Amino acid sequence: MPPTDRIRDHAGQGATTVAAHRARRRLRADRARQLADLLRRQLLTGGFPTDTLPHESILAGDYGASRNTVREALDLLRAEGLVDRQPGVGTVVVARKYPHGLDRLMGLAETLHEHGRVTNEVRTAGPTPAPAPVAERLHVPPGTDVLYIERLRRLGGLPLSLDLTYIPLDIGTALLGADLENTDVFRLLETITGRPLGHAEITLEAVTADAHSAAVLEAPRGTAVLMLERLTHLDDGRPVDLEFIRFRGDRITMSGLLRRSC
Amino acid sequence: MPPTDRIRDHAGQGATTVAAHRARRRLRADRARQLADLLRRQLLTGGFPTDTLPHESILAGDYGASRNTVREALDLLRAEGLVDRQPGVGTVVVARKYPHGLDRLMGLAETLHEHGRVTNEVRTAGPTPAPAPVAERLHVPPGTDVLYIERLRRLGGLPLSLDLTYIPLDIGTALLGADLENTDVFRLLETITGRPLGHAEITLEAVTADAHSAAVLEAPRGTAVLMLERLTHLDDGRPVDLEFIRFRGDRITMSGLLRRSC
Repeated sequence: MPPTDRIRDHAGQGATTVAAHRARRRLRADRARQLADLLRRQLLTGGFPTDTLPHESILAGDYGASRNTVREALDLLRAEGLVDRQPGVGTVVVARKYPHGLDRLMGLAETLHEHGRVTNEVRTAGPTPAPAPVAERLHVPPGTDVLYIERLRRLGGLPLSLDLTYIPLDIGTALLGADLENTDVFRLLETITGRPLGHAEITLEAVTADAHSAAVLEAPRGTAVLMLERLTHLDDGRPVDLEFIRFRGDRITMSGLLRRSC
Repeated sequence: MPPTDRIRDHAGQGATTVAAHRARRRLRADRARQLADLLRRQLLTGGFPTDTLPHESILAGDYGASRNTVREALDLLRAEGLVDRQPGVGTVVVARKYPHGLDRLMGLAETLHEHGRVTNEVRTAGPTPAPAPVAERLHVPPGTDVLYIERLRRLGGLPLSLDLTYIPLDIGTALLGADLENTDVFRLLETITGRPLGHAEITLEAVTADAHSAAVLEAPRGTAVLMLERLTHLDDGRPVDLEFIRFRGDRITMSGLLRRSC
């Protein structure tokens, strides 16, 4: 074998070792993600009643995984802020996510009433000329004043969401005098108009929070937020409430039931 | 006025100036977010037909905002990867988000058929002993083999989601021989069982992607993903498909309609 080939051969072996090492790492990362997803589900549904996870060796046995994979899975959940390691105690659940219903149109206080009290810090509330896309959706002439409200919403004192709300001024004026700090806008709309709400078109997105939004939500920089855009109509079809809501990703889940046939 | 008071007074003025400066910055950041949300909506619904945004001065006029606020709003959208600035052209739309329906239970290829072809890179497919939480949800004894599939799903070649799927083995065995690369699992399930799907329980979360998941999805580190956990049942109620899906936050929106009364 000529020397160049030997060199090539050697390089080839090196490449194989590197490739094998990478493949092992990839496999372990894949398994860690797979296990983290199963554990996340358990965490979110209260599957660890004492809020302490079983020891790594028990998890390894239960899930047929290596200790390294278990450790990597717990690291993923820790990076998401769901668990933490406490010396002498083990891995404990530190975050709780609250389930926001996706099956029925409900306000935040309404949907979370069993989890605690929702309070709203009103950051801004006042008339503003409706920009064209707002006017169009609320069926008012562009430039007409609408009520703009900005609220930081908390559950049991912890920031949950930052809500930007546009409401036609004929309804909005009455809203300005209402108890916005302790009442869902949905409930106020129904009281003011004397009609039930009908339906809402919603769009959900996952977005990385900008620095300012993260600061307002008291969340770490770069935190993931669940963005909800929602246009709510009265039961007679009139659009009355356009909202842009940023939920802290580590505090909210949206749950619902989908059917195959309508 | 004694000298100490003058000093205090001076310090007080400094503090006021700093506070006023902070308040202005906060106000501008709030307005930038408000404007960014309106522009995001326009971007996502094709409101800029040429994929070029109007000049900053026009946006400033249209939205009654200062040029600085417009610039800051565009920076927010750029940080999200939705727009980019091109010298001599202006601000252009660079990302497209595809709407995944929330009203009916549909597979990815089905819901996105008008947007392009969905292809699936099968990373893993084979039997694995069901961990307890999987066994419980799929109504099989713990430790029984179930089919585990891992797919990277693309639309028109671009990664959209990473799907981890568990299926009872009596159905899963037939799935293994099917064209998983080009067909939704939903469609295969209906073909194999000869029954339509019935309903699914879903949970949505916004999560910051771990480094490995981001790499698989070819997304930037720290990217926001829309996590969907979904347990799908046949029309006779049998649970047949447990999935953990990570959608790239910058490529998918979920849209639907909620009603106030059920």
